[in-house]
Amino acid sequence: MRALFWDGRVLRLESSRPTPGTDRQFALVRVRLAGICSTDLQIFKGYMGFRGVPGHEFVGEVEEGPKTLVGKRIVGEINFACGKCEFCQRSLGRHCPNRRVMGIVGADGSFAEYVAVPTANLHLVPDNVSDEEAVFTEPLAAAFEILEQIQLSPGDDVLVMGDGKLGMLCAQVLKLTGAGVTVLGKHPEKLSLIKKTGVRTLLLDSWKARLFDVVVEATGSDSALKLAMSAVRPRGTLVLKSTIAADHTVSLAPLVINEITVIGSRCGLFPPALQALAEKSVLVTPIIEKVYPLNAGIEAVTHAGRAGALKVLLRT
Amino acid sequence: MRALFWDGRVLRLESSRPTPGTDRQFALVRVRLAGICSTDLQIFKGYMGFRGVPGHEFVGEVEEGPKTLVGKRIVGEINFACGKCEFCQRSLGRHCPNRRVMGIVGADGSFAEYVAVPTANLHLVPDNVSDEEAVFTEPLAAAFEILEQIQLSPGDDVLVMGDGKLGMLCAQVLKLTGAGVTVLGKHPEKLSLIKKTGVRTLLLDSWKARLFDVVVEATGSDSALKLAMSAVRPRGTLVLKSTIAADHTVSLAPLVINEITVIGSRCGLFPPALQALAEKSVLVTPIIEKVYPLNAGIEAVTHAGRAGALKVLLRT
Repeated sequence: MRALFWDGRVLRLESSRPTPGTDRQFALVRVRLAGICSTDLQIFKGYMGFRGVPGHEFVGEVEEGPKTLVGKRIVGEINFACGKCEFCQRSLGRHCPNRRVMGIVGADGSFAEYVAVPTANLHLVPDNVSDEEAVFTEPLAAAFEILEQIQLSPGDDVLVMGDGKLGMLCAQVLKLTGAGVTVLGKHPEKLSLIKKTGVRTLLLDSWKARLFDVVVEATGSDSALKLAMSAVRPRGTLVLKSTIAADHTVSLAPLVINEITVIGSRCGLFPPALQALAEKSVLVTPIIEKVYPLNAGIEAVTHAGRAGALKVLLRT
Repeated sequence: MRALFWDGRVLRLESSRPTPGTDRQFALVRVRLAGICSTDLQIFKGYMGFRGVPGHEFVGEVEEGPKTLVGKRIVGEINFACGKCEFCQRSLGRHCPNRRVMGIVGADGSFAEYVAVPTANLHLVPDNVSDEEAVFTEPLAAAFEILEQIQLSPGDDVLVMGDGKLGMLCAQVLKLTGAGVTVLGKHPEKLSLIKKTGVRTLLLDSWKARLFDVVVEATGSDSALKLAMSAVRPRGTLVLKSTIAADHTVSLAPLVINEITVIGSRCGLFPPALQALAEKSVLVTPIIEKVYPLNAGIEAVTHAGRAGALKVLLRT
């Protein structure tokens, strides 16, 4: 089969076979569509020291595995947990210390014709959800994760920093709670897109200091933290959504003085994301910028890395 | 009257008069005993750009004010709030954006014979609480603040980093919940002192990587953050107690990956602290290192600034 392979220096298209783990029951999945995420781009800068087939956003069809799953259209959670430890027992396999993470830590990912995924990680895709929608399940679940960690109420004033892919998803999800959501971004054309989902928008150039109950940092930029901290009201909450490998140089004194709660937020559970896609309560397809065939994967990754690029997909 | 005065460069003993604000009803308090806090030492390094009489820990006697208070032994909360804004309405005067803070922002403090304090900030000291105990009300309230922000349960595994004054108070307060508390420190003699309060202790030199449900950073050192972050279990809580003006250079990626909650924690309410002092459930007088007369205030501040110094008091 064909796969994109990252050797730590160069990404190239080559022949490769997925290697299912022996620790759990795996299914062999024929990938239909895969999404390129900012984390993938970080990996190409050395994040996690990953070597192998990258990619963790995908929708596919089970080719080998339990009979009940073969031929079914599925999406898959990316944390391959041990299923036995204390975290797994508490349904927190996402924090299993023994976990491998698809395309990020110790497991080949979805920029390939086939990927091996533990059957426990698979979720059926509802019929009324297209491949182009289903491929957003993983990042949409990451947006829903915020609601597993904090409680929002109608009347809460929320700022989402970043008008990129993640910001667009977070803003739409948080708005479902009835909270007032504003997206702060740099790109007028993206902000227009976001406005269509009923979210308020604000151009960074016209930012005036103002305090919010909750600020979600989803810019992926290491320079945004200071503004984020300054925009949270005393006793408010700052959610960090972007995984930034680089060091921040920042005084944490304002966190203490204003008694701010900072919450790191990562992967989420898939069911709420799939439900939102089925109910069409979140719009995802306008976020797609371009679909490339797997053969043009290198070009696709270059495109995804351009400043301001929205979602780039690989059809495999 | 005599007072220590900080002009931004030099601390000197001089004649001064406290200046009550006109925004609220003030009482004139004859200071009996004042405590030197690490924040005072930060002020002498430029923190908050404060000019005036420093000091915010004290016990005193009301000399002028409402009849019901005159002659009474009191302690005073340090945030002079406006009493009118949204935060004040929610009993969060500690976060009033218009507040002055005794000895820290815009209000003279307690390193003086007299200090002017809003009557709304005063609390009567129970008869069975000595001056030497009552002077700890403010830092003890700051320790209790943690319990206003997070819920601890018996069985929770808590690490308090720092065997200084604040660490000793935090550890004792958190232990009241039934949680298992360990203090990590550098000073064997201080750790012995802490051990007497029934808290487990651990010398930094023999630290082995281990995960805790809750970590409280109370070292006052800007180098402790990395270890603190590494000692919190996934989905655990890191409480930042020290106000450090300096910049941290740190990668926040572990916060996101492990979905850690970071909580800035500052001033607390006085009633729980006064109650604990009255019930003798927290030991504070062993933390006193030396008591100086106000006349020797400069020497006292120098002493308080020595590495490893415990609580230094001024008798005025």
